[in-house]
Amino acid sequence: MKRQLVVAVIGAGDAPRGVCKIAFEVGGVIARRGAVLINGGRAGVMESAAAGARKAGGHTIGILPGRERRDANPHIEFAIATGIGEARNAVIVASADAVIALAGEGGTLAEIGFAKKFDKPIVAIDSWREIDGLHRAGTPADAVALALKLAASNSRRRKSNG
Amino acid sequence: MKRQLVVAVIGAGDAPRGVCKIAFEVGGVIARRGAVLINGGRAGVMESAAAGARKAGGHTIGILPGRERRDANPHIEFAIATGIGEARNAVIVASADAVIALAGEGGTLAEIGFAKKFDKPIVAIDSWREIDGLHRAGTPADAVALALKLAASNSRRRKSNG
Amino acid sequence: MKRQLVVAVIGAGDAPRGVCKIAFEVGGVIARRGAVLINGGRAGVMESAAAGARKAGGHTIGILPGRERRDANPHIEFAIATGIGEARNAVIVASADAVIALAGEGGTLAEIGFAKKFDKPIVAIDSWREIDGLHRAGTPADAVALALKLAASNSRRRKSNG
Amino acid sequence: MKRQLVVAVIGAGDAPRGVCKIAFEVGGVIARRGAVLINGGRAGVMESAAAGARKAGGHTIGILPGRERRDANPHIEFAIATGIGEARNAVIVASADAVIALAGEGGTLAEIGFAKKFDKPIVAIDSWREIDGLHRAGTPADAVALALKLAASNSRRRKSNG
Repeated sequence: MKRQLVVAVIGAGDAPRGVCKIAFEVGGVIARRGAVLINGGRAGVMESAAAGARKAGGHTIGILPGRERRDANPHIEFAIATGIGEARNAVIVASADAVIALAGEGGTLAEIGFAKKFDKPIVAIDSWREIDGLHRAGTPADAVALALKLAASNSRRRKSNG
Repeated sequence: MKRQLVVAVIGAGDAPRGVCKIAFEVGGVIARRGAVLINGGRAGVMESAAAGARKAGGHTIGILPGRERRDANPHIEFAIATGIGEARNAVIVASADAVIALAGEGGTLAEIGFAKKFDKPIVAIDSWREIDGLHRAGTPADAVALALKLAASNSRRRKSNG
Repeated sequence: MKRQLVVAVIGAGDAPRGVCKIAFEVGGVIARRGAVLINGGRAGVMESAAAGARKAGGHTIGILPGRERRDANPHIEFAIATGIGEARNAVIVASADAVIALAGEGGTLAEIGFAKKFDKPIVAIDSWREIDGLHRAGTPADAVALALKLAASNSRRRKSNG
Repeated sequence: MKRQLVVAVIGAGDAPRGVCKIAFEVGGVIARRGAVLINGGRAGVMESAAAGARKAGGHTIGILPGRERRDANPHIEFAIATGIGEARNAVIVASADAVIALAGEGGTLAEIGFAKKFDKPIVAIDSWREIDGLHRAGTPADAVALALKLAASNSRRRKSNG
């Protein structure tokens, strides 16, 4: 069985409506491109991205901070109740082939830090201009296309490095 | 969306063939009963249970100790690369509605300990007779039926407790 | 700088008075033998062992489940606020050279499982007779002496294995 | 027993000599001011800060990613072998009253993100100018003085909030 590519969508749990709308579209494109969505499983960007992915028929995984699966938003198909709190941000990033970043706060910044540490490609939409080393995209479709392309080339590079 | 019940199957990563055969059957019954299989994503009991579940058309989740999804066995559909080492045993148990235990060593014992701590029903097949408070079943079919029944009643009790 | 040996004392957070009295004595012997006490930092066995160690002038480390250091019992000198919940049990065991087990429940069982997995010597006092592979001691002084002896020989073995 | 304040010093594991020199001085001031140093326990900024603190007679705690205490640098007095990999960055920050940031890469960025999330004061020396919400100091002495002042006022605020 060949495993599907997995894309993390990260951003604020209390994002404004405009950011959530973008997250919803990003989730939809991820699903239509045949990839799996992973995120923190809670509200805001996490809920909107999962809603978009599910509406488009995709799989969604939520990596929750707490120990109760019912704390996941209703669009999370597979809820992982880590119980490890905010340290779960490292798990989200490690489990993804690429990361798409929307506007967020400290938790999102921690995830960007882990993505750099773990050498995962990061594509930012309308946000995080102050951080070096992120790729930029103007639309959800472009962001997902770029994330999947970078993930594929990253994966090839890792394999050839052993 | 109503989320499917999730059953963890735990046991040795280097289990003998007879134990793996039981694990394969347990995985198959879990899938045919409409539940999701979760485990540690590696070899032995973990691989056999996942193979059985996938062959029966079910979903399988592997909660890996390391940071590389490719370390999952080939029957894991959704690989979570936690990077948190053996502490991931707590995540497996917290993310399951019930636990089915086969023969194992220290890692399996840690998972049984967490299942007790987190108040998750545990059904043992041919193993762990020395531990109090486990339910017993003689066949894979009986074990899964009992696990799902206990999970449903546990879930009702939790809801009514608030 | 040569680092001191570290001994984990594990057992119930709501242990009866007799067990806490033994824990207090164990903590005292650990300190008088020049070792550091580590445990989960909360009540019951954890608090009594820490009180005994501090009274005898030793260092005490508490590995807390939550994110607030003030949740540590007052006899913890160095409180580590992991925020990773019960998964912190793996951290306690990994950070110790030997484990002394008193009566406990699921959390203690998880720690015994990890101690087996991580190949750390375990000495039980008046408890856990049902679990194979534990060493037994009748008094706090004997338990600590045995734990330190096993820790030293374990450490030599690991070094020679590379 | 009143617990000492704890200050995390974060920065690159392969920092250039100039940054390590500052880290050494920061560690020394932390110790002389009666606070405990905590960090990731490895090389670079982590080793230099610990060396400075120990030389000044202070306590040092290293929160290691792996499961072997001997991987700590020689200036770590208390080595916590978490085994949870880079997720241990969340533990370092949660266990500190304040954070002093020197130049670093993704791991340091993750720690800054967690410090924001956990509402811990961050003082940067000669680095991280692109990140909002950090306090700035020009010298090790000023950085530690500011970190301790912010930690004390943060602690009072938390207590009055309940």
